[in-house]
This record gives sequence, C-alpha cells and structure tokens, in this order.
Amino acid sequence: MGTTEKQNEVYLEPEYAADLASIRKARKRIETFIDTTPVLKSSFIDELSGRKLFFKAENFQKGGAFKIRGACNAVFSLPDEVAKRGILTHSSGNHAAAVALAAKLRDIPAHIVIPKNAPQCKIDNVNQYGGRIVWADSSIESREAIAAKVQEETGAVMIHPFNDGNVISGQGTIALEFLEQVPELEAIVVPISGIALGAKGIKPTIKIFGAEPYGASDAAQSKATNTIVRNVSPRTLADGLRAQLGDLTWPVIRDLVDDIIVVNDKDIVKGMKMLYESLKIVVEPSGAIGLAAVLSKQSASHPDVAECRSIGIVLSGGNVDLDPLWDYMNCACQT
Amino acid sequence: MGTTEKQNEVYLEPEYAADLASIRKARKRIETFIDTTPVLKSSFIDELSGRKLFFKAENFQKGGAFKIRGACNAVFSLPDEVAKRGILTHSSGNHAAAVALAAKLRDIPAHIVIPKNAPQCKIDNVNQYGGRIVWADSSIESREAIAAKVQEETGAVMIHPFNDGNVISGQGTIALEFLEQVPELEAIVVPISGIALGAKGIKPTIKIFGAEPYGASDAAQSKATNTIVRNVSPRTLADGLRAQLGDLTWPVIRDLVDDIIVVNDKDIVKGMKMLYESLKIVVEPSGAIGLAAVLSKQSASHPDVAECRSIGIVLSGGNVDLDPLWDYMNCACQT
Repeated sequence: MGTTEKQNEVYLEPEYAADLASIRKARKRIETFIDTTPVLKSSFIDELSGRKLFFKAENFQKGGAFKIRGACNAVFSLPDEVAKRGILTHSSGNHAAAVALAAKLRDIPAHIVIPKNAPQCKIDNVNQYGGRIVWADSSIESREAIAAKVQEETGAVMIHPFNDGNVISGQGTIALEFLEQVPELEAIVVPISGIALGAKGIKPTIKIFGAEPYGASDAAQSKATNTIVRNVSPRTLADGLRAQLGDLTWPVIRDLVDDIIVVNDKDIVKGMKMLYESLKIVVEPSGAIGLAAVLSKQSASHPDVAECRSIGIVLSGGNVDLDPLWDYMNCACQT
Repeated sequence: MGTTEKQNEVYLEPEYAADLASIRKARKRIETFIDTTPVLKSSFIDELSGRKLFFKAENFQKGGAFKIRGACNAVFSLPDEVAKRGILTHSSGNHAAAVALAAKLRDIPAHIVIPKNAPQCKIDNVNQYGGRIVWADSSIESREAIAAKVQEETGAVMIHPFNDGNVISGQGTIALEFLEQVPELEAIVVPISGIALGAKGIKPTIKIFGAEPYGASDAAQSKATNTIVRNVSPRTLADGLRAQLGDLTWPVIRDLVDDIIVVNDKDIVKGMKMLYESLKIVVEPSGAIGLAAVLSKQSASHPDVAECRSIGIVLSGGNVDLDPLWDYMNCACQT
C-alpha cells in the first residue's frame, strides 16, 4: 500500500488525499473551533457484547456531528482573498450545517444547496448558522447542477462533503483524539474513511471496520468487486449514509479499511435504542450504525472482529427529528 | 433558621434531618459506588435564556438518576447484622432501582414494592439489578400496607424514598460536586431538598429554587400556606414528581428553598425537546423540569430568578419509555 516507516508511525505516500501529517496540521488548524468530545462507556453494553466498547461521542460535537472538523479544516485552509468570495456545498445533512457554521466562524458567506427531502432538523441547523439555502431536488444530478450554477454566479469555493483532501484530513482528527483517549483500542468501527488514515498512521496494527446499511452498501460492494460501485438509489433510514464513494475516498477504503460490516435498518434502530437507554444520549440513525455493526451476526462470526477485545465506535452525529416522540409526549400531558 | 457560622460555611442546627457534615460523610461513604457526573453547557440555550445555565447530568448517574446517591448512603450506613436481613422500599421509579442496585453492591436482598402503573423502564431497571418485586396498587395506602407486610415477614429495613436523613444526605452530595465544578453558581434549580442543605451550607448566599408540575404542586402550596399540603391525586407526566412532602423534607423546603416555580406538563415537554436537541441527551420528564422552570414566564417576572446570571440545573434522571419513538423508527425502516 506504499508506506515508509519512521519510529513506529507509518507515513502514507501521497497516493491518498490525506496522511498523518495533513491530519496533524488539520488538528492544529481547527483546535480552537471544535470540541474534544468525550469517550463514553456502558458496563451493560460491554457485558452484552463480551468486550470493551468505547464510544466517541461526536453527537456532542459542535453542530451535533463530526462534520465540523472537515468543514473547518477546508474553510480555514483557504487564502483570505479566496475565502471572502464565500463557500458553497451541496448536502442533505450534517455537512451542510457544518459548512454554514465554519463560514460563520470565518465571517464569510455560505451557500448551501439542500435537497427538498432533507431532515427538518438539519435544515434548521443551516438556518441557525446563517447559511443561505438554495433548494434542489433529491437527485445527485439536481444538486450538482444547481451547485454549479450558484458557483458560477457567486464565485464561491466548493467544499465537497467527502471528496476533498482537507475535509478528509479534518475528519481524520477524530482518530488522533480517540487513540490518545484510549490507546489500547484494537479496532475502530466508523462510517468515515479519514479515520482509517489517522488511526493506521499512528497505530499500524489497528483494525478499521466500516459500517454500512444494506440499502446503501456501495463501499461493501466496491470492496467485493475491487472497483467503485455507486449507490443508485440509496434506501435506508440512515440519511447521513445515503452518500457515494469518491475517487479520493475509494483508495482509502480499498487499502486501509479491513472490512465493511453491513447491517439492516432494524438493527440500526436497535442500536439507537440501546444508546438512548443505556448511555442516555441522542444519536441519529447513522450515529448508531457502529454499535449495530459490532452487535450484528456478521461480527459474531467474523474472525477479525471476534478477536478484538477493545473496540472504538464513532457516534458520528445526533441530529435527528424526534417529532413523533414530542407528539406522543404532548398527548400524554396532564396539565 | 437556626445556624452557626464558621469560616464562611454555615452549619445547620440539628432541626433538619441532614447538614453539611452528614452530607460530607455521605460523600465519603458512597464515593466508590457513584459517578461524578459531568456539567453540560449549551451556548444556544444560554442565548435563549440570557444567562449562563449549567446542567448537572445526573441522567448519566449509575441507574440513570441521582437516587443511587441516597440509596447507597442509607444502605451502607446500616450495621452488618442489620443489613444482612435485607432492605425494602416502596417506589414507582428511580428510587426503586437505586435501592435494588445499592443492595446488589452490598450483596444483600432487596424487596421492592412497586405500583402497577410504574413506567416499564423503571421496572426493568429493578429486575436488572436483581431486586425482588412485590406488586401494589397505585395508591399510597396500598403501597404502604404491602410494604409493612413484607417488612413483618422478612425483617428487612425500610429505605424510605425521601423521608430519611441518610437518603437526604446522600442526595445532598450533588450540591458539593456541583459547587466544586461551578463555584460561581448564583442559584440552583432542583427537585431535591437535600441539595438545599448542601448548597446553602457551602455557599450561604446561593438561591435555591424548587420546580414542580401544576398537577403535583404540594411544595408550592405548602410554602404558600406554611403547612404541609399533600398531593391527593397527582396528575402529571413527570412520574418522578408524583411524590409527597415528608416531615423531614418539609422543614428544609420551608426554610431553605427560596421559592417554588410551578410549570405545566407542556412546558416540561418543551424542556425535554430542547435538552434532546441541543445537548443530545436523554432525560425523563422530571429531569427536564428545572430547565422548564428557568425558561417559564414565572421565572421571567420573578425578581430573585431574574437577577441570577449563573444558574445550575439538576437533570435528575434519564429513565423514560421511548417506545413510541422506536415504533415510529421501526416503521420508517427501509431494510
């Protein structure tokens, strides 16, 4: 996979869009803007899974998801004269709000192309941070066409949700924090390729497992066929994972992610329920997929997962519409 | 109110069932069994309320609520020959599970009298900790009669949910932690009288505000009439607050709680929603009442509340049945 060793750390060759050095630079660049999120534990879940699980609570991150790490790194990497033209992205979710927030922190305009079927709470977050919303249809083609038009009109810089070296480096900072907080981790389960670069850079023996829903399992299919397979029409409750592989993320997943664990939506809901009940935290469906993967049948019979005694799970975000719950609670009110 | 001063700290005379000394002893006694819970902040909620709010996250406490503090203090205060006969309580909620857990920690039997209308998740917790459940009707009379019978049969020691000096001292340990974590607090809003003893002991100038639902506002009515008023048939979503004043808690509330803020159930649900959305944490209705009180109209026009710039809010617990949410999420599953 093209690496050079230096003092137990592995520096990845520039065939990848990010490396340990760029992730460390990102960490310095964004440290004043992001929170170091806590690592949570549950003795109940440990007992259930027969190993130690460590949960990196990125649902507590600014903007309610890890995405602010990549967005801040990309936005604060821009030279002043470029940044002042503003920034632009298309996203249905947490990246959209993260870009709006990063732009607010740098005091520049943000244009956010959002598909009409995005979750309301994520749209609210973009508004809260002062991003200018431009509506698109739900198809990738519509989003991209409208984004191109906005870019032409404004000269704003595109901050791609994932296929961007600075974004990948920013997300990778989770790995640095996580391994400082829990050095004994033998594996990390993530929905994020940047973490693989950071984690394997620091600790080459660590296993990295991806987690995907059945209805949007492009990474698993791509690894199985060794070529990029695209999600044609993603079908999953986990709105944050209705994404695509990019030409910058695919080589990382191909080479550095040991395996992809695929779970169904019902298992994601079970994972959410366990996190709400045992850890008393709010995560969105995409945020619970790591736990769902570790507790899945596939993991139980997976030799590489089975041998790991300490597994880190990244809880990617906590932005979820809970209106059905509030409707119910309001009906149950007695005064 | 009968106090002696010593080096800025106020030692309360034994007219109360607990004092700063008994609370400090409790803290030493229980420190290995309980967690020091974090204090959470939200810039969004601060902006909304126009002041700094600090949330003491007892929803993250062992057993999911602050009640383990009082239960552990009471259970570990018992001499060995008394403890081995077992312990007993009647409670519809978090105290029940806390007593079961404290008994498990001391390896003695626990008999828990539970009304049939108790929330399922709280019953599950008692089972999880190995408590023996004895069913009662929902009336206080039924609970007390059945508890008396169990006590006669087993010789177990009653651990009253609130009218017990050791329980009050245990709950009061929250105040010690909270004021160490945030010394600048000017007020604390709580559903727990023990905290008033601890907080005013350490910092005599601090204000203590109680929070109650309209449908179970015995403390507010008692303070207004200067005599114990009982909740005849409490009507509130906040199951943890369907309690009564006791002859040990009433003098504390009468003398040391500055005022009681009364809110309706809909405001409690609004408070829950804000905590779920902004802090990404799960609290039960009783756990959200402090925030509901601070954001209420009554607080806005209350001179003592209005002048406080830093207010501590105790999030008392996080044990809540979210089944309507999981039913909805399961229906929304696509695979």
